[in-house]
Amino acid sequence: MAYTEVDQLAINTIRVLAVDATSKANSGHPGAPMGLAPASHVLFSKFMNFNPKNPKWANRDRFVLSNGHGCMLQYALLHLFGYDLSIDDLKSFRQLDSKTPGHPEAHDTPGIEVTTGPLGQGFSNAVGLAIAQAHSAAVFNKPGYDLFNNYTYTIFGDGCAMEGVASEAASTAGHLKLGNLIAIYDDNHISIDGDTKCAFTEDVLKRFEAYGWHTLEVKDGDHDLQGIEEAIRQAQQVKDKPTVIKVTTTIGFGSKLQGTGGVHGNPLKADDAEGVKKAFGFDPSQSFVVPQEVYDLYGKTAAAGAAKEQEWNNLLQKYAGEYKDEHADLTRRLAGKLPEGWEKSLPTYKPTDAAVASRKLSETVLEKIYGVLPELLSGSADLTGSNNTRWKAAVDFQPPEYGIGEWSGRYLRYGVREHSMGAIMNGLAAYGTVIPAGGTFLNFVSYAAGAVRLSALSQVRVIWVATHDSIGLGEDGPTHQPIETLAHFRALPNLMVWRPADGNETSAAYYSALTSKHTPSILALTRQNLPQLQNSSIENGLKGGYVAVDAPDATIIIVSTGSEVSIAIDAAQYLKDKHGVSARVVSIPCFEIFDAQPKEYRLSVLPDGIPILSVEAACTLGWERYSHEQFGINRFGASGPYKKVYEKFEITPEGISKRALATIDFYKGVKPRSPINRAFQQLI
Amino acid sequence: MAYTEVDQLAINTIRVLAVDATSKANSGHPGAPMGLAPASHVLFSKFMNFNPKNPKWANRDRFVLSNGHGCMLQYALLHLFGYDLSIDDLKSFRQLDSKTPGHPEAHDTPGIEVTTGPLGQGFSNAVGLAIAQAHSAAVFNKPGYDLFNNYTYTIFGDGCAMEGVASEAASTAGHLKLGNLIAIYDDNHISIDGDTKCAFTEDVLKRFEAYGWHTLEVKDGDHDLQGIEEAIRQAQQVKDKPTVIKVTTTIGFGSKLQGTGGVHGNPLKADDAEGVKKAFGFDPSQSFVVPQEVYDLYGKTAAAGAAKEQEWNNLLQKYAGEYKDEHADLTRRLAGKLPEGWEKSLPTYKPTDAAVASRKLSETVLEKIYGVLPELLSGSADLTGSNNTRWKAAVDFQPPEYGIGEWSGRYLRYGVREHSMGAIMNGLAAYGTVIPAGGTFLNFVSYAAGAVRLSALSQVRVIWVATHDSIGLGEDGPTHQPIETLAHFRALPNLMVWRPADGNETSAAYYSALTSKHTPSILALTRQNLPQLQNSSIENGLKGGYVAVDAPDATIIIVSTGSEVSIAIDAAQYLKDKHGVSARVVSIPCFEIFDAQPKEYRLSVLPDGIPILSVEAACTLGWERYSHEQFGINRFGASGPYKKVYEKFEITPEGISKRALATIDFYKGVKPRSPINRAFQQLI
Repeated sequence: MAYTEVDQLAINTIRVLAVDATSKANSGHPGAPMGLAPASHVLFSKFMNFNPKNPKWANRDRFVLSNGHGCMLQYALLHLFGYDLSIDDLKSFRQLDSKTPGHPEAHDTPGIEVTTGPLGQGFSNAVGLAIAQAHSAAVFNKPGYDLFNNYTYTIFGDGCAMEGVASEAASTAGHLKLGNLIAIYDDNHISIDGDTKCAFTEDVLKRFEAYGWHTLEVKDGDHDLQGIEEAIRQAQQVKDKPTVIKVTTTIGFGSKLQGTGGVHGNPLKADDAEGVKKAFGFDPSQSFVVPQEVYDLYGKTAAAGAAKEQEWNNLLQKYAGEYKDEHADLTRRLAGKLPEGWEKSLPTYKPTDAAVASRKLSETVLEKIYGVLPELLSGSADLTGSNNTRWKAAVDFQPPEYGIGEWSGRYLRYGVREHSMGAIMNGLAAYGTVIPAGGTFLNFVSYAAGAVRLSALSQVRVIWVATHDSIGLGEDGPTHQPIETLAHFRALPNLMVWRPADGNETSAAYYSALTSKHTPSILALTRQNLPQLQNSSIENGLKGGYVAVDAPDATIIIVSTGSEVSIAIDAAQYLKDKHGVSARVVSIPCFEIFDAQPKEYRLSVLPDGIPILSVEAACTLGWERYSHEQFGINRFGASGPYKKVYEKFEITPEGISKRALATIDFYKGVKPRSPINRAFQQLI
Repeated sequence: MAYTEVDQLAINTIRVLAVDATSKANSGHPGAPMGLAPASHVLFSKFMNFNPKNPKWANRDRFVLSNGHGCMLQYALLHLFGYDLSIDDLKSFRQLDSKTPGHPEAHDTPGIEVTTGPLGQGFSNAVGLAIAQAHSAAVFNKPGYDLFNNYTYTIFGDGCAMEGVASEAASTAGHLKLGNLIAIYDDNHISIDGDTKCAFTEDVLKRFEAYGWHTLEVKDGDHDLQGIEEAIRQAQQVKDKPTVIKVTTTIGFGSKLQGTGGVHGNPLKADDAEGVKKAFGFDPSQSFVVPQEVYDLYGKTAAAGAAKEQEWNNLLQKYAGEYKDEHADLTRRLAGKLPEGWEKSLPTYKPTDAAVASRKLSETVLEKIYGVLPELLSGSADLTGSNNTRWKAAVDFQPPEYGIGEWSGRYLRYGVREHSMGAIMNGLAAYGTVIPAGGTFLNFVSYAAGAVRLSALSQVRVIWVATHDSIGLGEDGPTHQPIETLAHFRALPNLMVWRPADGNETSAAYYSALTSKHTPSILALTRQNLPQLQNSSIENGLKGGYVAVDAPDATIIIVSTGSEVSIAIDAAQYLKDKHGVSARVVSIPCFEIFDAQPKEYRLSVLPDGIPILSVEAACTLGWERYSHEQFGINRFGASGPYKKVYEKFEITPEGISKRALATIDFYKGVKPRSPINRAFQQLI
């Protein structure tokens, strides 16, 4: 299609808006938007299907700006196409509580699919979005009903290309032959340290070829609109591979400093900004000016997108008649609702039931619920047999030609790639039709810390099945035994860390994780067997903390989680038998949920006047919030049979009793205030 | 060189020892050792220079088993070659407090260079070891004195190849043209989930080619000893590129389950183990048997290695005569000592000195000390200008042919690759001649959590220059503002987290980090300016915590770190002026160091009877250890000019005062015990 002066005007408008917004904020990254304006203009105006009036249309094409620091590009596009993002919003770029923060945040800004900025994440999210599309198509599309056929587009820069998380995701995408995924690599040779030749001289396209991607190149991404268009069109036609298009651009195109690191992370100087405007035919004395022709041009695309959505809605309505169940399933999922009564499938346990490892209890939950929760996609970072994440009848999500799975499969083989598993799960959750759960050892969730943080920040429902959650994993030793991990993730806002003590608490953890639409969860689960507790129930578990064993006139409370609760209960018995001391035992499987209970309830569990000792086979940091004294492991673990490791660290009934007696002694004559009582409320 | 039956016997002895040790432990991974025995036999007996009697010989070839779960391979080799690892040590495999833990730990076992197991780390450590060799050669080698010419060898498996950290490191190694690095890729097609075709179908060699590596292939790694030898020899001859040799092996070679996931992570069944022994000519009724011919064969290699060390020592002695200064420098470094009086170069500040951002203060330290500490190698993950990690006269570490640096350069361009930066720094520190310091934003140290954990566990001196350490970074917003990060790393054993409040504390942080030979450090530094404090001094800083502003008859203590200390001091003034309340302000720049002070001192800083309020612009978790009430940010941050962000979260003199008054009120009539007083000591 021929490009006119209006196209060029649109491109320059994007550039000038990026200059204006970063100048006004006196902060931000003008370079990437200025360089990427041509490619994104072609992509948005010639290819992408979207309706700015309904950014949540299920079959919209997804767009992810992985180099999120260039977000003025995306904000400008969203504004120009008519999303709910005004010119005043652009003027508030990087200002407090604006819809245009320094990096794009999915929950704040209409049209932003995922939260990006930390490099490599967005690219990996796009892989997740593309997987979700392929899966949803396999599940819901029917002859004549191509309900899900959207593309996922992502732009990424050199920084993203260097990050390991993106390498992992790219390898996965190549393996999975995600033909609906089209990535534009902004090859501008500049990162913050200047010319990429100082650290990044690899052949990126060859690397992507090695992963199994289709590769294309546009040598003059500053001017060759036709070439960009042709490349995207070719990419769309390759159905059995993801495509990467290397588009060579000039960072900060139009600036005096174009092509240098000087335009990467700093606003243009005033005279430079003026020069850019003049060169692009804008009045240098004015800011935030959008020529009406640009609004008109993009308005046509927007209108076409709205019409496409209408067409799709009509198709969906027809589908409702022909495929009633599928339609009901789909609309339920899109509404973010779980099937009515699904929770009745959660297993419950009696105290007389056998001792079972919580990773096995988790497996039982999955076996019981997979049938009633078709949106649940499980998977593992190559620890399937250890994480127990795969229900027996599961089918792998794989390109059918491998002969080992189907596009409709609900089990993902993430490979030994924890970080991209996390980032892919964020993309899966953002798509809107599936709920991802992924397994690894708790210790290796840390490899994915960058992605977990973005799950929490972007408020997506992602579930980590984090097994082998302590020294209880035994022989693998300190390289695999988490110490700091629970504290780390408890410190992260909007993330629930569950450490269930038995079967009912495990069911509670799943209930909570699956019903928390805007909060990710980590389920920390044991390798070793755990007995079923007396007072445990799903209901009690869902309070986040409760009295596991009460004792009249308790002189101490032992508060604990997971595998240590039953040891604490044995310690209470030991204290009674050997020392005539009466102890209450409290289980707090989830701090975040317990904190959300009414204060009265929390005080009934951890009342004033009784010293409280915490016990957890991990770093004690943070336990001061629920206890006066803390017993844990503030050093690295040890390799050996797990019972011996517990003995080494004295996490035994005797070891706990010793600390309990010391605590009672220390508080003799003192009626300590419950740590639940605080001087003031935290801001939230 | 022709291979005899004794070579095959040695190979089979390694296999049988791996079977025996995993069987006895009833735990572990026999498959990798059985498959890799031929390649490692050729490598260790034909190529590697080492002296088992002195595992610390400076110019030894380095060997890293990146797939650390296969450590019985390495333990068997170390034993057979005569390292201080007895057959009884092999019998104690995976037992408590043995020298043969479940994964290799550098500080426990002679001959283990770096701690591996968490996949991808060892490979990346090897890149660091190779960089250190290239740098040391450039600094110390002279005509006729090839003091440093060792190779770094690493074996890695499919798991390592999938991990992003290894991809990052491989890209870096290719860029840096590390000709002394030779990696053997154990292509056995099996990972824990079974056939790698379920998740890993990329062309690994092509990917490495894209990174700039030389690639070779040995198709029958089970039998083709000559081919393995030839490949390693070729690799040695390629001086301008690292080499990867893909050696196709059969996991669990000899077992009934060879070539399947069944031999990956479980001991062989009894009958299978017997069958293996029979097939390899061993008595199936006996275990841990080593034929004398094998000891003899390997003893010759060991003797040759000892002779080579002797030769090297003679050369070094001659070098001492000709290059006195270099020799003194080298021997000092190898002894792990810093130059006498180096600390006199640390800058100090008076309260009247200007307010400066601690990232700039850090830069000043580097400017002042780089000349007296030639072993210091700085660098950044592509944030040089933001981290302020580069002294002005620094030369980049680069292959000279790029024209942008030298092998002797002391500034590393890690690229946007935080995780591999961490793992490479671990390798650099392990080499023995350099001390690495690497910069990124504090928030993105989390990307490297896996590597930081191994710094701490393996007790290496690695320094993170972690700038932009709070909401104080302002406009970049919540994607870049750490909240949980300080708590995360404070919870990690054997890691020092420093958050200096001013110039003297910054100097103290560097002093501590540089003199802590067995502990890594994270220096959390600000983007924004900080005033110089009244009571601060290097000496006070080195106590980890001290009274920054005292007040007679204080009714509250405000304890804080970094950028919030000066705000707390303003709050104390505000309390005095507006409310007539007397407040002490305490700065605790480093929890770990403060905890190590005598209790008497800690109680003098945080005495009994006065309520203590903590203030830090981060998650409050963990602050209960030093305070009764906590004020912080238990949610994500916000994008905006930094002062406005501080105001939003009320971290201002007024906001702190409000909480201080609430705290005083809450403790009215109560003389709270200092949190320094505990009921019992933690195990360490």
